[in-house]
Amino acid sequence: MIIVMGLPGAGKSTVLAAAKNTGYIMKNYGDLMYEIASKQGHVKHRDELRKMDTATQKKVQSAVGDELSKMTGKVILDTHCSIQTPNGYLPGLPYSLLSKLTVDKLVLINAPAEEILARRKADTTRVRETNIEEIREHDNVNISFLAAYSALTGAPAVIISNRQGKLEEAQQKFLSLLK
Amino acid sequence: MIIVMGLPGAGKSTVLAAAKNTGYIMKNYGDLMYEIASKQGHVKHRDELRKMDTATQKKVQSAVGDELSKMTGKVILDTHCSIQTPNGYLPGLPYSLLSKLTVDKLVLINAPAEEILARRKADTTRVRETNIEEIREHDNVNISFLAAYSALTGAPAVIISNRQGKLEEAQQKFLSLLK
Amino acid sequence: MIIVMGLPGAGKSTVLAAAKNTGYIMKNYGDLMYEIASKQGHVKHRDELRKMDTATQKKVQSAVGDELSKMTGKVILDTHCSIQTPNGYLPGLPYSLLSKLTVDKLVLINAPAEEILARRKADTTRVRETNIEEIREHDNVNISFLAAYSALTGAPAVIISNRQGKLEEAQQKFLSLLK
Repeated sequence: MIIVMGLPGAGKSTVLAAAKNTGYIMKNYGDLMYEIASKQGHVKHRDELRKMDTATQKKVQSAVGDELSKMTGKVILDTHCSIQTPNGYLPGLPYSLLSKLTVDKLVLINAPAEEILARRKADTTRVRETNIEEIREHDNVNISFLAAYSALTGAPAVIISNRQGKLEEAQQKFLSLLK
Repeated sequence: MIIVMGLPGAGKSTVLAAAKNTGYIMKNYGDLMYEIASKQGHVKHRDELRKMDTATQKKVQSAVGDELSKMTGKVILDTHCSIQTPNGYLPGLPYSLLSKLTVDKLVLINAPAEEILARRKADTTRVRETNIEEIREHDNVNISFLAAYSALTGAPAVIISNRQGKLEEAQQKFLSLLK
Repeated sequence: MIIVMGLPGAGKSTVLAAAKNTGYIMKNYGDLMYEIASKQGHVKHRDELRKMDTATQKKVQSAVGDELSKMTGKVILDTHCSIQTPNGYLPGLPYSLLSKLTVDKLVLINAPAEEILARRKADTTRVRETNIEEIREHDNVNISFLAAYSALTGAPAVIISNRQGKLEEAQQKFLSLLK
């Protein structure tokens, strides 16, 4: 399994789009959470995922981990390195989850903070304000999480910088990891 | 349990003071170490804690972990993210300790390096010299430790910047974590 | 066991040379890998180590871990914090290996990025191009790995900066760790 993570505004989806027709199955962690949480009757809408109490959240996360651990074949898992919330940075791959998975590569897609800021400002659907220090802190924290995940699993930590005007380069680097 | 850590000079105690009358029990890791080490006859004064040999230190740490793991109710644990010693940065929350605890939040209180330097220089009780590069390195190392602790426990990593003139803001952010 | 790691061009070998006649046994992780891989018939030349498939690599790594875990006495293990490959940063001390070892200190030898760049450019045996951003990223990633290894083992994380003209200082700091 190849795990792909990215800062909001780093262009993860665009880089991931390059993996079409490579034989990899794409799985989105948030979709799996919603699927299982709604099947278990905890939520009716995706927005309610964040509002589940900690015990329920852990139960659902554990079920997602079990489902992922059963997957065979070439899988790309699309998730977050860490999620910025008012209550701090939530790890996207806590050890309780990681220890269930067979990870080949851990890929973090980022971009220079200035470019992320510009992209976020251009995104009119985005409500929350942001500033450059906040983006730098999140990027820095993400690299630390990435190294921790890599130390725990032994899988290599890959950082792909998706700079303005260099999308094709980022996609090529990503595709080279799938071989 | 909420674990609060901070760089010396970041103003951890002042931020923690805001938690009075919130129903949380405050526990200081160093106090617990001293309590147990003196009860077991290893030390007579707090200064001797650092001089215990590694085997004794691990034994006492393990006993502290056991005591903390038995605590029920709302607890704030006041400790270090890492301790700067002549022999390197000692992790405040090694996995052997963390794995015994039920951690809700991991809070790191820091401040801009320039402000920490100024505060340390103004502190006449402080013997050891310090410089800005050293403070930056320690802050950087602490953020990496914080992410590792968060990856191991699944608890969110919270960074509270306690800037000059913004103490109330830092306290408010801390109080919002206790709800 | 004391584990010493360093960025290529940081001058790890020169700092390590100071440990001659201190009673420590020096072990190089790469040498051990080659020794075991060739004994098991996987490789004939050292260059082939990188080309082993993942399953074989893990098998050999596990055997190296077993051998290291049996070592008694004072050992210095010379290895990498992370190895920069086209497929990302490979952790030098994945948890599967670390959990077998009794680690006293984790030492990372680095140097300012500008100096590493200059040293690498002067090294005519080096084929691969490099730039300052790449060196900064690797150094940053290494510090995150170091903190993760330290959190996992409880061993202190030591960073020794081997600056131009300050080799003796770096060696003295290293020697002070061996006492």
